[in-house]
Amino acid sequence: MSAWDLLFTGGLVLPSVGQEPFIGFVAVTGDRIVAVGAGDPPAEAPEARRTIDARGLLLMPGLVNCHNHAAMTLFRGMADDLPLEVWLHEHIFPAEARAVHPEMVYWCSLLAAAEMLLGGTTTVADSYFFEDEACRAFIDSGIRAVAAQGVIDFPAPGAPDPSKAVAQAAAFIDRWRNRHPRLTPAVFCHSPYTCSDGTLVQAKNMAAERGALFFIHLAETVGEVEQCQREHGCSPTAWLHRLGVLDRHTVCVHCVHVDAGDIDLLAAHDAAVVSCPESNMKLASGIAPLPQLAERCRVGLGTDSAASNNDLDLFAEMGSCARLHKALAGDPTVVPASLALRLATEGGAAVLGMEEKVGRLAKGHKADITVVNLDQPRLTPFYSPDILVYAAGGGDVAFVVVDGEIVVEDGRIVTIDLEEVMARVRELARPKNRRNGTS
Amino acid sequence: MSAWDLLFTGGLVLPSVGQEPFIGFVAVTGDRIVAVGAGDPPAEAPEARRTIDARGLLLMPGLVNCHNHAAMTLFRGMADDLPLEVWLHEHIFPAEARAVHPEMVYWCSLLAAAEMLLGGTTTVADSYFFEDEACRAFIDSGIRAVAAQGVIDFPAPGAPDPSKAVAQAAAFIDRWRNRHPRLTPAVFCHSPYTCSDGTLVQAKNMAAERGALFFIHLAETVGEVEQCQREHGCSPTAWLHRLGVLDRHTVCVHCVHVDAGDIDLLAAHDAAVVSCPESNMKLASGIAPLPQLAERCRVGLGTDSAASNNDLDLFAEMGSCARLHKALAGDPTVVPASLALRLATEGGAAVLGMEEKVGRLAKGHKADITVVNLDQPRLTPFYSPDILVYAAGGGDVAFVVVDGEIVVEDGRIVTIDLEEVMARVRELARPKNRRNGTS
Repeated sequence: MSAWDLLFTGGLVLPSVGQEPFIGFVAVTGDRIVAVGAGDPPAEAPEARRTIDARGLLLMPGLVNCHNHAAMTLFRGMADDLPLEVWLHEHIFPAEARAVHPEMVYWCSLLAAAEMLLGGTTTVADSYFFEDEACRAFIDSGIRAVAAQGVIDFPAPGAPDPSKAVAQAAAFIDRWRNRHPRLTPAVFCHSPYTCSDGTLVQAKNMAAERGALFFIHLAETVGEVEQCQREHGCSPTAWLHRLGVLDRHTVCVHCVHVDAGDIDLLAAHDAAVVSCPESNMKLASGIAPLPQLAERCRVGLGTDSAASNNDLDLFAEMGSCARLHKALAGDPTVVPASLALRLATEGGAAVLGMEEKVGRLAKGHKADITVVNLDQPRLTPFYSPDILVYAAGGGDVAFVVVDGEIVVEDGRIVTIDLEEVMARVRELARPKNRRNGTS
Repeated sequence: MSAWDLLFTGGLVLPSVGQEPFIGFVAVTGDRIVAVGAGDPPAEAPEARRTIDARGLLLMPGLVNCHNHAAMTLFRGMADDLPLEVWLHEHIFPAEARAVHPEMVYWCSLLAAAEMLLGGTTTVADSYFFEDEACRAFIDSGIRAVAAQGVIDFPAPGAPDPSKAVAQAAAFIDRWRNRHPRLTPAVFCHSPYTCSDGTLVQAKNMAAERGALFFIHLAETVGEVEQCQREHGCSPTAWLHRLGVLDRHTVCVHCVHVDAGDIDLLAAHDAAVVSCPESNMKLASGIAPLPQLAERCRVGLGTDSAASNNDLDLFAEMGSCARLHKALAGDPTVVPASLALRLATEGGAAVLGMEEKVGRLAKGHKADITVVNLDQPRLTPFYSPDILVYAAGGGDVAFVVVDGEIVVEDGRIVTIDLEEVMARVRELARPKNRRNGTS
């Protein structure tokens, strides 16, 4: 029996949400988990090349962030507390027009990846433009990613001619398919209100031919729903259904303003749903019917971008999610901690079609492991994993393993030069470097 | 000119909410801020006994947590996601009956103080039983505290005879008045539904005679309002008004279910209000009309106890507060970051009658300073102090100064043996040590 590459011993192990955690070990060889068990490894277990004493630490499945626009860390806090239209049209779109270029996407996506990894997120689904650069950043950082190239019916960063956007996305998918074990390419059609029916159908067919995921913002605001009703006489969800876009490889992000009929359609086609509660709250977009969606559909959690969250902390997102829906329902049993945890782990994995390889600490699964330091005041005492939802934060993460590699060690990211990344982003944030504008 | 005791140089200084932050210095002598300025200290400035290079750090007023039951860290996560009545009557009250004793209050309050200090909170208003032990913990930890001894009309920990509770609280106030510069004693009447009119009036008069603050839970749940309407024919706020209990030394905690008439009464009497959004969300108590309250009354933020939050992180509380009210109002301009920051600093100081000495970094004010490490991904780039509300967490705090003393240094608490405190609380949390019960 060959040696294990990595062994955590004496940790509190939460192999999957709903299981009772136990003191035990997790062993990794190559990119896979090869053993998980209570107590010490058996006497006949192989030697480990590296053993980490995990006493006082909790080992859990790496978190899955199902929606982000990573490069938008550049716009974190650039414009807060504004009406949505003002925020989008007077700040974000102009900033994107002048500040988004390949180098920006690389460094700002790298900053996002660092923040996510340091906060225990091991997989991200990202949707943006110049997505090749985001891919390079994700590969360099060590995170696992589904990277979706943006398609929108107006000139966008790196895609000045909307008529070529779908072809560009197709080339992107072809370029990145099977190229790196942690990277899965996809397409991101911005929304039903910024993409024509022709674009939506064309992009969906293109993705389907390639077996790629199709991401779309759906039913985020009341305005979007009203516009769709005016233009098409139906809800945005029904519109996607009529276009034949809803299927199990379509990921519908937000789904704030969906009614029972919409949920029926999503469920009937096994379309996946991503909820982004903090972003929806901050932009005052509304509150998704998450308990209902989670009963019927595959659902994951997303932070959305740093421009509307403003951090990329899935622990905080779980807490906000669990609290918000209790407040809305007037019922403290709604969205229990276990549901929030499930959405952020195996729920997200299922949304991304990765339920067979991430989202649980199970033999044969990819070794994507988040290790939380329980030995601190806010996580003391420990009665149950609920504490991960109601009291833990991204800053409580001690180790992160992705695809068998240690990416965060003792709270520090070891794959990249973080100081350089932050310095580059700060430089990009200076007014003189926001191209074509003075801000 | 005698030497300064402590000097922070080269930091980003936010002297008070609403001011533009600037790169500058803050100087401390004894328990006071003696100088705040842009750039370097002037050439004629005194020497400093200790100088801290604050480049990359943000100096802000210490946060003020206006409501906590510190000892209840023991019950953090012990019973989540339950109906309120089940939570309170089947879990919290029985746990309090068997597990609350002086030693428990000391160690668990010390854990709470450590968590708060590490998270940038420099002042706490605490309300519990065996409050002498909480006082000792607060003094040992280095935090500034208003400590209120509990009064309730049924047998409570350390107060088995309700008829003596007010006298006990009076003795508590007399014992602690002017005894320690960081400690202010007060009384905590649990609520209008757990204290008779006689108790409320007696306790308020006792506090008034001593110039002490009177804390009370008010209008937290619909059930409380309905009961008050049944029993007294008016709202809980109006009931307190009729009893003569509302004045500027009364601090009304929660105020979730208050209508325009109630807000008029609170404002007319200059009663202070504390909002605890995360606790109200988690217990599904409702959502306070915070924007309206903040326009009319002195308002601060509280975490409430770790049993219903479950952390004691005021940065997270600010973020939840700002996001929640946007979602509720459907308006992203509601509770802007600057308001949340103000509530957690000078707003809280005003609630506690401390606006002349804490809540701002101003010459002559107490040296209560929170220093945030901006040099990390989630706080990069930095455009404005809004980032403190939307992206910062308690884990981002590098230094904390209270009353001129450094309490947290490089993210570590220096006043107490944190490992011992956590070990004691873990021991108290073990089933065998939950007295009179097996749990």
